Amino acid sequence: MTTPRIIEVRRNLLRDNDTRARALRERFHAAGVRVVSLVSSPGAGKTTLLHALLPRLAEHVRVATLVGDLATENDARRLAAAGAPVRQINTGTLCHLEARMIEAALADWDLHALDLLLIENVGNLVCPSGYDLGEDLRLVLASVTEGEDKPLKYPTIFNTADVAVITKLDLAEPAGCDLALLRHHIEAVRPGMRVCEVSARSGSGLPALEHLIAGAGAAA
Amino acid sequence: MTTPRIIEVRRNLLRDNDTRARALRERFHAAGVRVVSLVSSPGAGKTTLLHALLPRLAEHVRVATLVGDLATENDARRLAAAGAPVRQINTGTLCHLEARMIEAALADWDLHALDLLLIENVGNLVCPSGYDLGEDLRLVLASVTEGEDKPLKYPTIFNTADVAVITKLDLAEPAGCDLALLRHHIEAVRPGMRVCEVSARSGSGLPALEHLIAGAGAAA
Repeated sequence: MTTPRIIEVRRNLLRDNDTRARALRERFHAAGVRVVSLVSSPGAGKTTLLHALLPRLAEHVRVATLVGDLATENDARRLAAAGAPVRQINTGTLCHLEARMIEAALADWDLHALDLLLIENVGNLVCPSGYDLGEDLRLVLASVTEGEDKPLKYPTIFNTADVAVITKLDLAEPAGCDLALLRHHIEAVRPGMRVCEVSARSGSGLPALEHLIAGAGAAA
Repeated sequence: MTTPRIIEVRRNLLRDNDTRARALRERFHAAGVRVVSLVSSPGAGKTTLLHALLPRLAEHVRVATLVGDLATENDARRLAAAGAPVRQINTGTLCHLEARMIEAALADWDLHALDLLLIENVGNLVCPSGYDLGEDLRLVLASVTEGEDKPLKYPTIFNTADVAVITKLDLAEPAGCDLALLRHHIEAVRPGMRVCEVSARSGSGLPALEHLIAGAGAAA
């Protein structure tokens, strides 16, 4: 039975991650950088949403992006087209980002030249939940095409996030999504959780989400 | 640096899983049970597809289902309505099914009373790939709403699966999915991989998939 040993190792890894994440958060605060991360299922629309938001955000703040994926530089290429600095983190077979990867990706970046850093995690509704990346705000995305039960089935990720973003609002009707039920399930696992509803395609809901992501810095 | 140690523990865990999976496969074959597993992102439509297929399969074979989720008995309840035996495996915070969970779930089942066992994994495009469950056939589902790039971004799960099933075909047009590109990406990571395209809602493609799942047993 190897279970007790893996739990012990996992605890050490998480402790190491928490220590690094705390140090990152201090660096971000000292440099005046607000950090917002995005987690979701694969294909819930993280990159599409960032692609829609980056030009809007870049009008008010100096923004950069880190994007995590097992393989490919696709997301970085897509986001670079939006005009803001972006760097891809390839995790190989690892199913989530860790604080040490953020450290390494930022090694040669001048944080003082940034106001806002966006971090797109690997598409995964389970494993990223345990890894603090030093962010100020964590958004969990749930697309209307995934079904209304995802908050109930993946409660941990909703509990470790600050805001739920319902994406692909323009597909709610063709997908037959009951938005009230989805909101009800979010409320059931995380009472009082803030919920935004957006469509990157139609632009619906983007101003409110932009304001939330930029925080007080948006007014600067 | 804890990485070498976690890799060693992971290897032991995988070796343990492989041994158990091999024993399961021998038990399944000895009892004449065909085993088919389904993996995908959360919300790609595994349960909906099984719900559509079970009554069709049950006309020809004695079929039962195991469904994995972190939390809730929702899927088991939904599938029980289709009339075939079903058992839920709750993994807690674990992001995938393992062979030992299949063993435990089957402990009091008479395998000789079955022809076909379907196993629905936890929604996750990364972690289930390394865990053999003793199945004969592994299906990886990709919904048209997830974007055409998922095979490129999650190559391992496509490489460990036998068949790719493109789901939610009825949403391809509203979602703007380029089906030829999605097929091209599957072919790029797994040349020659068999691809089925289905819509559980319209019924399109279900007969071919049913035949594939039931295998030779369908004619019995």
